[in-house]
Formats: sequence, C-alpha cells, structure tokens
Amino acid sequence: MQTRAALLAHCRDRLGAMRREGRYREFAQLEKLAGRFPVYRWHSAAGPREVTVWSSNDYLGMGNHPAVLEAAGRAVAEHGAGAGGTRNISGTSPLHAALEAELAALHGKSGALLFGSGYIANDAAISAVLEALPGFWVFSDAKNHASMIAGMRHAKGATRVIWQHNDLADLEAKLAAAPAGVPKLIAFESVYSMDGDIAPIGAICDLAERHGAITYLDEVHAVGLYGAGGGGISERDGVAARVDLIEGTLAKGFGVFGGYVAGEAELVDFIRSTAGGLIFTTSLPPAVAAAALASVRALRGDAARREALAERAAALKAALDAAGLPRIPGPSHIVPVMVGEAALCREVARRLLEEHGLYATPINYPTVPRGTERLRLCATPFHTDAMIGELVRALRAVLPQRLSAAAA
Amino acid sequence: MQTRAALLAHCRDRLGAMRREGRYREFAQLEKLAGRFPVYRWHSAAGPREVTVWSSNDYLGMGNHPAVLEAAGRAVAEHGAGAGGTRNISGTSPLHAALEAELAALHGKSGALLFGSGYIANDAAISAVLEALPGFWVFSDAKNHASMIAGMRHAKGATRVIWQHNDLADLEAKLAAAPAGVPKLIAFESVYSMDGDIAPIGAICDLAERHGAITYLDEVHAVGLYGAGGGGISERDGVAARVDLIEGTLAKGFGVFGGYVAGEAELVDFIRSTAGGLIFTTSLPPAVAAAALASVRALRGDAARREALAERAAALKAALDAAGLPRIPGPSHIVPVMVGEAALCREVARRLLEEHGLYATPINYPTVPRGTERLRLCATPFHTDAMIGELVRALRAVLPQRLSAAAA
Ligand SMILES: Cc1ncc(COP(=O)(O)O)c(C=O)c1O
Ligand SMILES: Cc1ncc(COP(=O)(O)O)c(C=O)c1O
Repeated sequence: MQTRAALLAHCRDRLGAMRREGRYREFAQLEKLAGRFPVYRWHSAAGPREVTVWSSNDYLGMGNHPAVLEAAGRAVAEHGAGAGGTRNISGTSPLHAALEAELAALHGKSGALLFGSGYIANDAAISAVLEALPGFWVFSDAKNHASMIAGMRHAKGATRVIWQHNDLADLEAKLAAAPAGVPKLIAFESVYSMDGDIAPIGAICDLAERHGAITYLDEVHAVGLYGAGGGGISERDGVAARVDLIEGTLAKGFGVFGGYVAGEAELVDFIRSTAGGLIFTTSLPPAVAAAALASVRALRGDAARREALAERAAALKAALDAAGLPRIPGPSHIVPVMVGEAALCREVARRLLEEHGLYATPINYPTVPRGTERLRLCATPFHTDAMIGELVRALRAVLPQRLSAAAA
Repeated sequence: MQTRAALLAHCRDRLGAMRREGRYREFAQLEKLAGRFPVYRWHSAAGPREVTVWSSNDYLGMGNHPAVLEAAGRAVAEHGAGAGGTRNISGTSPLHAALEAELAALHGKSGALLFGSGYIANDAAISAVLEALPGFWVFSDAKNHASMIAGMRHAKGATRVIWQHNDLADLEAKLAAAPAGVPKLIAFESVYSMDGDIAPIGAICDLAERHGAITYLDEVHAVGLYGAGGGGISERDGVAARVDLIEGTLAKGFGVFGGYVAGEAELVDFIRSTAGGLIFTTSLPPAVAAAALASVRALRGDAARREALAERAAALKAALDAAGLPRIPGPSHIVPVMVGEAALCREVARRLLEEHGLYATPINYPTVPRGTERLRLCATPFHTDAMIGELVRALRAVLPQRLSAAAA
C-alpha cells in the first residue's frame, strides 16, 4: 500500500466532512492585551479590530494581575526563558519546589506535583495510579474530560466503568456490582466545564468509603475560584481531606500555565517516580513557575475577586434570563447558551464576532455531544454591566427567534 | 478491598525498592542564572552554592539569549502571563500563528503545529496518524523515546514492530515481513538522546519508499543544532523533504518550552483537527511563543553558535579521551560517560556535586536500560576550556580506577 497517498486522501475526506458538518475549526487569532482584559485585538483577514472576549478561561483575569506579570518578568530576567531540562536532569528550580509546596498547602495535602499541563496531569497521574495495583476498576463520570479518559484508557489492565453524570444511585449500583476484591478508583470533576454543574463531592466520598474506593477529583474549573482560599469546591464543601487526589490547572483560574496533582506525599512521590508524562519531558520554565506561584499566593488571600466573579456570573445569568435567551441553568460561573446544531452555532459565533465585535467560541463535537452545540460564556470580574448589555442585545439579534423563550 | 491502604503500601514498597537499587530520584534544586550560564545556584540542604552544570539540554544557551529574553519580557508585559484558553477557545494569538509559520519554514514544510511539549507532540501526533487508517503497522526503532512509544501504544488497533536500533537490515526484513496491503509508518529519531548516535535518515527514507511506508522523525535533540539553518540532521543531510513528519521541541536547542510537528499542510491540519492532546488543553502562553519565535529566528541565522557547539563538544571528547575516561563514542554533541551501575552512578554524581561543584545527572532506569547507567555530559558554547579541565580532573578523582582506560 502507498501509505502517503492513502493517508492524505483520508485527511482530505475527514476535513471535508468536518467542513460540511460545520465543525471544521478555524482558530481565530486573538491578541490578549494586558491591562485591557477582556478586550482583545482580533486579527481578521480584514485587519486588526478590538473585540470583547466572552470565552476566556482566565476566569479571574489573573493572567493580567500586576504581581503575576511582575513575577514572570523578573524570573525571565533572572533565570532565562526555559528550564533546560527535565525535572530530574537539571530542570528543578527552587521556584518549582516552592510552587509544589504552595499547591500542597492550598489543598491541605502533604504533597503536590507539577506537570506541563492539566491535561498531562490527568493522563499521567490517573494511568500511574491505575497501573500501580493489578486489576484496578475505575468508575468514571460520563462527562469526564478527555484528559481523564486518556489516563484511564492508557492504563494497561484497568477496567473502566462509566456511571451516569452526577448520578449517585448509578454510581452506587455500579460500585456494588464490581467484584469486592479489586482496587477501585472513582474519577470525577467538581465543576463540569461545558455544562457548569457541580458534583456532590461529599456524597461521592461517602460511597467511596463504603466500597473501599479511592477518589480522584479534577478541580480544573474550580481552583482559585471557589473555597475560602481558592482551593476549589472540595474546599468550599469542607471535604478536601476526604479526596485522595485533587488535580488542578494553573492555566485557568490562576491565569498562567501548567497542571498538578495534590495528595498524600507518598502517593505523590510514587507518581513522581513512575509517571512517564512527568519523567520524560522538560519542566515548566522558571518564569511560568514564578508567575503561577505569585498567582496562587495572591489568590489565596483575594476572596473579593472570587466574590466579584460570582456577582458578575449572576448578573450575566439574570440578563440572559430577562432577555429570554436559552441558557442552560447551573450553579457555577460557566454560562452555556444552547444552540443545538454545529453549523448554526458557528454562524451565530461568526455574526457575533463580525457584526458585533464579541468573541464567543462555538463549542461543538467532540468537545460536547452532537446536538448540544453551544456558546459557552464566562463573565469575569472585568466584564462590565455595559458589556453584558451589549452581549445580550447582540445575542437577541443573531440567535434565531425559535431558540428564545416566548416570554421575552 | 481497602484500596487506599493497598495503594499506599504498594507505593511504600516500590519507593523502598528504588532506594535500595540506588535509582530513587531526588530532584536537585538548581537555580538557572541568566547571563551566567552554565553556572547555576544549587540549593542544597547546606545552603546555596554556585556550581557548573554539565547536564543542561539548553544546548546552545538560547535560554539566555538577549533577544529571547527581551521577547519574553515584552510579551509578558503586553499580553499577560497565560493564553487563557485552548487553541480553539480564544487561545490562539498571532504569536502562535507566526511561530507555526516559522517552524514550517525551518523544515521546508507547508504546515506546522504547536503542542504543549515535545512529549505531547509525539504522543498526540503519532496516535492521531496511526488511528487515521485501519490496520496501521508502525516500525519503531528500539531506542525510541518514551513519548513516541506512548503515541504508538495509545493508538488503538495499530500493530507495533520494533526494529533493532539504527539497523537498516533489520528494518528492511521487518518491513518485508509485514502484509503488503497495510499502511506503514517508520518512527525514529535523528540524534538519540542517551547515546548521542545518529540515524541514517536518507537510507531509512529509501526503505520507506520501497515499502510504501511514511516516515516520522523525532529531531528533538537536533533542531537548532544541526543543518545550515538549524533544521536538524534532516536538513544537514538534505533529506527533510523526504520525511513526512518532523517532530521537534522548543525546549532544548531553542532554550524555551513547547513542541511541534511539521509536515504537509493537509496532514498537519488533520492532526490539528483530531488530536486530543492538542484540542483539550490550554495553549502555550503568548510569552513562551514569543520567546520561542525569537529563538528560532535568531538561531536560523546563527551558524557560528552551531559551530561553537561542535567545537566545544570535540574539545570535551578529546579531553575525556586523553584522560582515559570511559566515554561512549559518538558523532554528536551528546557525550555519555559509562558507569554501568545505578548506585555507583548516583554516588559519582553526588561526589561531583558535593566535592567538586559540578552537576551531572546520573541517568538510570527507566531512562536507559539497567546495567548501562551513565553520566550524560553536554558542553555548550559557554563551557570554557577551564571548565572542561576542571570536569576531567574531578571525574578522574571520583570514578573508580577500573572504569578508566589503562593508557591514561
Ligand atoms: C476538566 C478539565 N480537565 C483538564 C483540562 C486540561 O487542563 P490544561 O488546560 O491545563 O491542560 C481541561 C481543559 O483544558 C478541563 O476542562
Ligand atoms: C527524543 C525525545 N523526544 C521528545 C522529548 C520530549 O520533549 P519535551 O521535553 O519538549 O517534552 C524528549 C525529551 O524531553 C526526547 O529526548
């Protein structure tokens, strides 16, 4: 077989099909403007233009926090641009160590371990744990993120059981149906990124205890944002001590880059000593570690910023509801507006951007199931009332009438 | 089963075994000092101390290049600390796009795609390609890096065949033994990171053509370092156009952070559109992209720096040979000194550091096979003759006599 010709023909087919389905992705070029967040400079074919971004995961604007920028700039000047090695091969600076200590403290754990991203943290840590003991069964919430699924699939010999999203009865039934003698892990998220709903962590820990399972919690969309010190929903609910491994990112609420897991020191040390995704890759640049450290430290004491986020999210939801727009209800800062069709979703986003100067990413398959395509909006503390008003008017202009409630 | 107790007991056992085998890794805390490279500040239990680092993969010192630092600092001030989104969800800046264009040009390809690291680039790109067509056979050099192996193992349905390291006859025999009708990929590296030997890329491409296979080449330890413009061994040998996918890192020769693949635009677009390790993770910080872009641009025109590296590597090899030290011979800038035993390797490295102020990482299993534990040395353009002399004297002092040649 001539592999090259066959492969290129396949690529052409697949890309063509994506285009026809309206889910071919073009990455808009958006230039973040420090100090002007959430205003970005959009570089379109027609030239640059300022737009308001409604789809940033820099949820709290920490990527523009003066202390974070200062730390990053200083570390670049003092330590250079890159780490120059893996963690083991000259790539561990005191900044990496200090950041790990800070993250352990954030979650009240005795250990924490940095990874290149939240994605790798999930992939590497979950597979390392599942391969530690033979015959592991992993109970995975149906809406778990792709990176957690990667970790489960990559673990040789583990059995994966999917339980219905946030459904305690289903989880309990599936735990009960598993063999009593096998090791068990329950893997789930706190705030689900595409729906914005929140898991009942304490109740899941109850089930884990009853069935001798350990728990792995992805707090990627919650760290920095929830809990008295920004430790996430597990801190807010007072259950962090009951969760065995808490995974988070430094790239969303903390506004920088990188990921981590926190847990009991010996377990974390085991992951550190065995996980390929940690051992065989260059460590984060010292300046990224410095910026993340400054962000975590600042945010642990900045409850006002968390309150501002909650207030702005409530204001956005209220404005959407008042306008009868098709919002998926939920208790978190993530505000999805349902469109339900890939091509339409893309068209709505295109018109928002081109006609109204508002950027909201169309979320389509494989990020969400087909038929549930949506715009996913987040109001940060820096989105003003005027911006919310502008967004609501624009959505009413570009969304088909049939999607809006009759009331409005 | 009480999973927590069983897991922690297992962790304790495994960590204990690693300690007994002398391969438990403690990450030395080494503070990179911009402008003083390769001098670092080592933070030991006894306090900070300046040491010369011989195990950095910032091979050319680009992590300290003024243009790179300037670009990083400016981008932090202008664009903040993080991208705030995945590539698709507001995380693509003009800097990401410019860097991809620059990397495509570096390798003479029509497309290039950034990843969070070289590790993820290999894992995500290889698995995306192998899952594109049913029944793929992948022919993997026996010394391929863990990240390439991850990509092959993670590809569902692909058959993996391992050929003897750099052995054309074995590769040919294995290609010939495979079914004629299946798609085939040959995966290999140019400069092998732990031995420093170099693959016969052109001859491998000959075999690929004869058997209808495509080629995937990891140039992680060569990009920036070899070829007239730093395009790696494939550029040096004039065979880049014959390689289907060239993978590289921005974290070693380029001194920053991140990874990429370059190839035909349509193939790269397919990977961009399907690879989970690209879709579901935050994009590199704008400042990292800016620093990497500055580094690639500077290095494409800086043949003198490449020549300085070659000259320094030759000087180091000559000095080791003159002193009768057990160097593994090889044509590249990577200079391994064989020790052959984990505990001894660790002890030699400890004494180099504590008694001589020289840092060289002990390389042990799983990075190299047991029984081939080594120190892996790299002389950058910033390692002086005096530093080489110091290193050779220290090695003679700490390596057991039986490892040194009688001649010296
Ligand atoms: C639930 C969840 N986990 C993990 C990740 C990966 O985190 P990172 O962007 O740091 O790779 C994401 C998104 O990117 C996510 O949504
Ligand atoms: C051959 C090879 N490929 C890929 C990688 C991964 O690159 P990165 O450090 O950018 O993740 C490494 C080392 O880290 C390597 O040695």
